[in-house]
This record gives sequence, C-alpha cells and structure tokens, in this order.
Amino acid sequence: MSSNLQLNPEGKLKHFLTIEGLDKNLLIEILDLAESFVGITDHRINKVPLLRGKSIVNLFFENSTRTRSTFELAAKRLSADVLSMSIATSSTSKGESLLDTIRNLEAMYVDMFVVRHGISGAAHFIAQHAAPHISVINAGDGQHAHPTQAMLDMFTIRQVKKEFSNLRVAIVGDILHSRVARSNIQALNTLGVAEVRVIAPKTLLPAQVETMGVTVSHNLAEGLKDIDVIIMLRLQKERMSSALLPSENEYFKCFGLTEDRLKIAKPDAIVMHPGPINRGVEIDSKVADGPQSVILRQVSNGIAIRMAIMAMAMQKQGAA
Amino acid sequence: MSSNLQLNPEGKLKHFLTIEGLDKNLLIEILDLAESFVGITDHRINKVPLLRGKSIVNLFFENSTRTRSTFELAAKRLSADVLSMSIATSSTSKGESLLDTIRNLEAMYVDMFVVRHGISGAAHFIAQHAAPHISVINAGDGQHAHPTQAMLDMFTIRQVKKEFSNLRVAIVGDILHSRVARSNIQALNTLGVAEVRVIAPKTLLPAQVETMGVTVSHNLAEGLKDIDVIIMLRLQKERMSSALLPSENEYFKCFGLTEDRLKIAKPDAIVMHPGPINRGVEIDSKVADGPQSVILRQVSNGIAIRMAIMAMAMQKQGAA
Amino acid sequence: MSSNLQLNPEGKLKHFLTIEGLDKNLLIEILDLAESFVGITDHRINKVPLLRGKSIVNLFFENSTRTRSTFELAAKRLSADVLSMSIATSSTSKGESLLDTIRNLEAMYVDMFVVRHGISGAAHFIAQHAAPHISVINAGDGQHAHPTQAMLDMFTIRQVKKEFSNLRVAIVGDILHSRVARSNIQALNTLGVAEVRVIAPKTLLPAQVETMGVTVSHNLAEGLKDIDVIIMLRLQKERMSSALLPSENEYFKCFGLTEDRLKIAKPDAIVMHPGPINRGVEIDSKVADGPQSVILRQVSNGIAIRMAIMAMAMQKQGAA
Repeated sequence: MSSNLQLNPEGKLKHFLTIEGLDKNLLIEILDLAESFVGITDHRINKVPLLRGKSIVNLFFENSTRTRSTFELAAKRLSADVLSMSIATSSTSKGESLLDTIRNLEAMYVDMFVVRHGISGAAHFIAQHAAPHISVINAGDGQHAHPTQAMLDMFTIRQVKKEFSNLRVAIVGDILHSRVARSNIQALNTLGVAEVRVIAPKTLLPAQVETMGVTVSHNLAEGLKDIDVIIMLRLQKERMSSALLPSENEYFKCFGLTEDRLKIAKPDAIVMHPGPINRGVEIDSKVADGPQSVILRQVSNGIAIRMAIMAMAMQKQGAA
Repeated sequence: MSSNLQLNPEGKLKHFLTIEGLDKNLLIEILDLAESFVGITDHRINKVPLLRGKSIVNLFFENSTRTRSTFELAAKRLSADVLSMSIATSSTSKGESLLDTIRNLEAMYVDMFVVRHGISGAAHFIAQHAAPHISVINAGDGQHAHPTQAMLDMFTIRQVKKEFSNLRVAIVGDILHSRVARSNIQALNTLGVAEVRVIAPKTLLPAQVETMGVTVSHNLAEGLKDIDVIIMLRLQKERMSSALLPSENEYFKCFGLTEDRLKIAKPDAIVMHPGPINRGVEIDSKVADGPQSVILRQVSNGIAIRMAIMAMAMQKQGAA
Repeated sequence: MSSNLQLNPEGKLKHFLTIEGLDKNLLIEILDLAESFVGITDHRINKVPLLRGKSIVNLFFENSTRTRSTFELAAKRLSADVLSMSIATSSTSKGESLLDTIRNLEAMYVDMFVVRHGISGAAHFIAQHAAPHISVINAGDGQHAHPTQAMLDMFTIRQVKKEFSNLRVAIVGDILHSRVARSNIQALNTLGVAEVRVIAPKTLLPAQVETMGVTVSHNLAEGLKDIDVIIMLRLQKERMSSALLPSENEYFKCFGLTEDRLKIAKPDAIVMHPGPINRGVEIDSKVADGPQSVILRQVSNGIAIRMAIMAMAMQKQGAA
C-alpha cells in the first residue's frame, strides 16, 4: 500500500494509516506535539479549542471500548464534536455499501474518520475513496497496522529512555497476527534504535520475519539479554484452539514474562503491553503491576498522542 | 390529525410533525433559514450558539443510524446538548408506559424530543401529551410522515431549480408504504409545483391516490416524460415476501431507474433518493453515481434543514 | 463499610457512596447547593462552567436509561465531558479484571466515575482502589445503597414541607431488597424526622429492621395514620416468582396505594416514588397522577441534586 496517500502535496500529514513510509522527522514532530498536550491530558491545563466546530466520526467496525474511549476523550479535549458509530460488519460486508456509508458521512461535512476494522487495508481503502476534505485515522485494521498504538509506545519509550539510538527493544509474543507488532517494528526502525528483537515460538512468527529489520529469538530467557524495552503482546485466546499453541499454561511456561525472566533484561528495562492484559497468560501480575511496568503510563500517553495526530491531520486542511 | 398542534398561538412553528396544514410561507421560511446555515454545515463558519444550554433528546424507537446522526450533528452545530436514546418498542408497547417515559424526560427539563417510531401518529401522540415547554420533531412515524426528509428534498430542489412553479416532479416506487412519499407530495403541492406524478405498480399505490393531488402512471418509461425532478423511493425488501411484488429482478426491470430510462425525462432532470439506496433494485449504480444525481447533496442539506427546523421550533419558546 | 472513605482529610466530600456516616450538616450543604442549581435545571439560567474540561465516566454495569440520563444531563449542564460505558457484568465478573478496567480509565485522567452495579459494595470497592485524583459516585449498588436517589427525595421533601423535624414518613413496599429504602431511612434519620415508618408484609422486611431506626407496620391502612410523606417502593416483578409474594393482584389489594388509602394519611401528605412506577401494582394511577403526587418533581430535582453532588465531590480535588 502506498504511504504517500498519508501526506498532502506539501508533505504534511493528512491521513494517518500506517508508520510505513513516514520519515523520522514526522514521527518526531508527532512526539513533540504530543508532549505539549500532556498538560491537557492530565488536567493541569483545560481543553484547547484547536478542533472547535470540527466533527469527528468514530467508525468502529470492530468493538473496542478502550481505544474508542481514548479517541473520544482526545477529540473532546480538542473541543471537537464526536459521533460514535458502531457498525456491524455484516451490514457493510460488501465494499459497495461500505462506500455508500462513507459517502453519506462525508456528505454531512464531517472532518475526520477514526476507523477500526477487522479487515487489513480497510482504513487505506476509505482514505483512497474519501472526499478531499476528510482525514482518516487508522485505529487498527486487521493484522496490518495500529499506528497510533505504535506512536504512544514510542512516546512512552522516549519519556523514560530519552534517546532511541542505543536501545535494544524486544517484542514478545504473537508477532504473526499482531498489528501492534508490525507498527512498532516500523516505528522503532524509523526512529533508529540499535536493535529490534522479536521473541516468539516459530508458529507465531511471519515467514521471513528478518526482512522486517528484526533479529529473532525463540527463547524468552535468552532473548531478553541486554534488552532495554520489553513490549509484550496480548495473546488472542482464539489462537489456542487453532492448534498454533498448546495451552495457556504451556504458553505461560515458555513465553510468559515473570519476575525471574525480567531479571535477565537490563536492570532498568521497562515493560510495556498494549492491553488489555491476560494476567497469568503472557504476563505475570507481579510484573504487570511491578515497578518496571509502564503499562498504565502507555494508556495515559494514548490520549496526548491521539490529540497530536488528530490536530496535525486537521491542520493540513487549512493548507489543502 | 390536527396540524394546528404544530403552531403556537402566534402562528409560529412549535412542533414539526407533518407538512399537512403548514402554509407555503412557513415552508419558505424554513428553506430560507436553512440557507443561512449552509455555511455552518460545510464548516466555512463555525458552530452557532443558538441552542446553547438547550437539551435535545433523540428518542429513536426505530433504528436509523443515518437520520439519528444528522439530527445529532445538526444539534451539536447549534451548540445544544444531545442525549441519544434507543428504545426497544417492546418495553413501551403500552401507550401508558410510553407516556411515563415522556413524562420523566420532560421532568428533566429537556427542551425537545426528536422522535422516530414505527407506529403512525406516534410523534403527534407525544406532542399532544408533552408539557408546554417541549417541542417535538417528527423524524419519521410509521407510514405516516417524514417531514424533515420532505423539507430537505424541497431545499435540494430549490437549490438546483430555483423556482417550484413550473416543475413536474415524479415520485417512483412504493408509494403505498412510504412516509417519504406522503410528506413530499404534501410539500410539493403546498409549494405549488405544476404537477406531482406518482409512478408505481398498482399494488404499491394507496386506494384513491388521486385525492392526494397527484397524477398517476403505472409505466416508468411513459411516466418520466417531461419530468424535471425524479424522486426514487427505497424498496423495502420485506415487501417482496409479502406477495405485493414478484422479485427484485422483476422490479428492477419494470421500475428500476436506468440510464436509458433517465433519458426519457427532461435533459436537465435531477435524480433524488432518501437513501440508503438499493443498487440494482430501484436504481442503477450508473444513475445513482451519475451527473444528474443529487443524492449526496440531499444528505448534506439534511443538516442545514434540521438545524433550521430545530432553531425555529425552539424560538417559539421565548414567545410561549 | 467505612464511610470515612467518602471524606477527604479536611472533612470535605470526595466520594459519594452511601448516606451512612455523613452528618446532617453535609446533607444540608448538598441540599442548599442543589437549590442554587434549580435555575440551571429548568433553563432559566444557562449552563455553568464549574466542571469545564473535566471528564466523567458513566460506568453502568446494570442497565438504567433514566438514571444514566439524569447523570449525563447533570454533567453536561456543569459543562463536563461525559463518556458513557455500558459494561456487561460477565466480562468483568472477576474482581481482577474490573480493577484493570478502572486502572485503565483512571490512566486516561478522567476525574469521576459514576458507578451502577448489581453487586452490593461495588462502588466502595472501586473508591477504595481508585487513584487519589478520582471521585466515585454511587448510582446504585445491589441492594445496598442509592444515595443520590435518597438526596433527591430529601430535596423534594424539604421543598414541600420546609422542615424535617416534625415529619412522619412512611416507606411502603419491598424494604428487604430496596437500596432506595436503605438510603432513605439513613437520610431521614440523619436529618432528624420525627418518625420513619416502614410498611410491608413480613416477607419483605429485613430481620431486625427496627435496629435501622424505624417503626414497623404490616398494614397499609393502619400504617398511613398521621403520615406526612409516603415513599412508595417499586415492586420488582421478579420477586413474585420467588414465592415471597402471592400475586400482583393480591399485592395491590394489601399494599397498593389507592385514593381511599391515601385519605388515611394527613390531608396534605405527599406521595413519592423512585420510578419507574408499576401502575396498578404498588400504586393506583389516580394517586400517581393525582394532586398529592410529587413523583415527577422528584425526577426534576434529580438533576439539581446530582449537579450538586458532582460539583462538591470535584471541589475537593482542588484541596486534595
């Protein structure tokens, strides 16, 4: 998928669909703008009127209370009007009628679609067909990308570690099916970390995963050596039945992050997780709630990052 | 049903339940006010504070994402607070408990109910029993009326054709069950068009339809002659099974609007549809997406018209 | 459950979980503040910006359109942003995952949870575990407490009767299962009424009910003698099948409030009900809609009271 679609002729962010094809400067610009919003997020500053009078539609074809809530809060703190629509995939299973839904919403002069969809490429498809005045933000499409999650992860990493260049980052778990993993690998490489290491059983790794710019380990204990940042992935329980995995117990024994295993990483390593966590499946509660965990800080940062991305995408409209 | 219910003692709009009984001046006043809101609709102007501090309740006993969304956007652009309630008809099947719901909401000092209900007369019933400070807007009741749809259709027609007096308008499809048809026939006659022609199979026409002030045709090709405006109706698929109609295919052959048939109408005829469209059932995609279609413009105009109607109905409150 | 949890170190209201342990002065302070909001409630005054920029989450684990709506309207009239989440109890049946939901929401820097839950103690549990910057308002927990309902009842009583000290108040119906009854008994005793009398069949009274500071009657006709205020409780129809009660008809004969029975109370007695009412089960329509009924006034007062409680709980945050 072409990533140029994401930029307007002046090279400014118009849509935010994937990390792929965005350069380091743009990612840094997002992180810096998000930093200026942290005070609004935690209420030391009140709302900002940046998007006053703008209408944002949350188009959630897949259920996600948490992600929908952060986008809704972010939009409201920018003073935008938010319309939340949960759309059963069934009623728009034909591309044609999805397009009719989009055409109708853009005819209402809304300014932005925040799209979550179970099918990879759905947000791109919408961006390709949307009217020129519309910005599309990808809130997760199939197993393809979840770029706002990646950016909040980058924000959290920078907050703690200051610099990206010397970091070794491990991503642990079901890389094969994870849009979070894909977007994080792209963001970390774009921002120039020293190493991205994926740690997973072979059945949960994509073919030729090395071409994504990562090193590979199949052993959690070994793989955590010298690691500064550990990104745990959520184990989709439905994978269990699909014979890719033996059992939750078995998985936890091999790839669950425990206090003991955490000690193998650098002493100041941080533990991240996109949530919601499966306690005792991919992560022990002692680690999830422990001093090295920044999982809840990720959630907080999610609002500032989404405010930044929405504000930047909307600014292009003045220029367009 | 008495239409005087809609006007306050000074003759100003208080409720908006049906086109019936409203005079031409009032309809023109709505169209003119809507015109002043077009700039807000498409964001050249920001929100207006006309309804700031007012509370509007969307009471949708029937599902309609699209109509609910336009009312919600319209209300928010007028700076009102909106409470959306989807109410299963089952829980209010007794008139008594519907009244109790209404009594409770008006006790919360909300200012306006936007009502959609599967039963003809529901909005009237609510308006008759609501407290004096409440305005009721009919967003579609059974097969009775859908007056805001009719007004956005009138707005769209005026936008393109400027004058109503010389127009010949065809309404095509299931007239029998259509609240859109009923309200449009009333609005077109009130605004004084030259002819309203209904085109439908006999099974989809009400008895004595001529008394509604229309001419009748049972043949689409013939019926489109000299027509300036074509209003296609959505075919409710559930009618198929009820033996009123043979099959979708058969229907499309006889009453589907194709490019060829469109050529029978005047060369500058416009094509309208209240949406959502059934492509290949009542209308060919080439026509729906073609240069004579104003279907999406109707959607855009829906917001300005609903802003105008809500603002006018609320103004009466100062005078009441 | 400790009630100190509700106050901050300066003795100011932080959470509002139960009437238990709150003193008379604090209850009066709530009533007085609510009085200042009545003009906003009925729109003689516009919105107040007290909670502008604040985010309130409605966490409704139990369905309640009415209570959710009043909290939402109250929050919006204080200019807060409201996020409404309906959460199926199933997905958070383990305390652990309820906590994770809470942790995530507080990480988003929301300011207040309004909690309704089917399990007694749920709001306390959340308040005990919530971050220091969060206020928790109990919108009803199991059969334990419904303190905002009690306060709106107190507000309505004071509005009509001016003074509490000489009043005799009867609470009629299913005391055993009623959180409304429990909270009202506590509030009435704290405010120092002359008598709280519960009137119910033995099967619908808690063991040792007298220890709650009430007198007891099992006969409605007798029990209403000298009564100034009658609080009718809603009869949960599911109690019928549980063999605690014979039939709706039978119940109405013995404990339904009719015009005849109402005459037994003082001539200026008022009739209250938390709603929604079961007409012909616990109350006759002639009484519910009659001149002594203040049932709809209770609904109106619900907004002012909830505004007051939310505003007070939020003020503590400046001091915290």
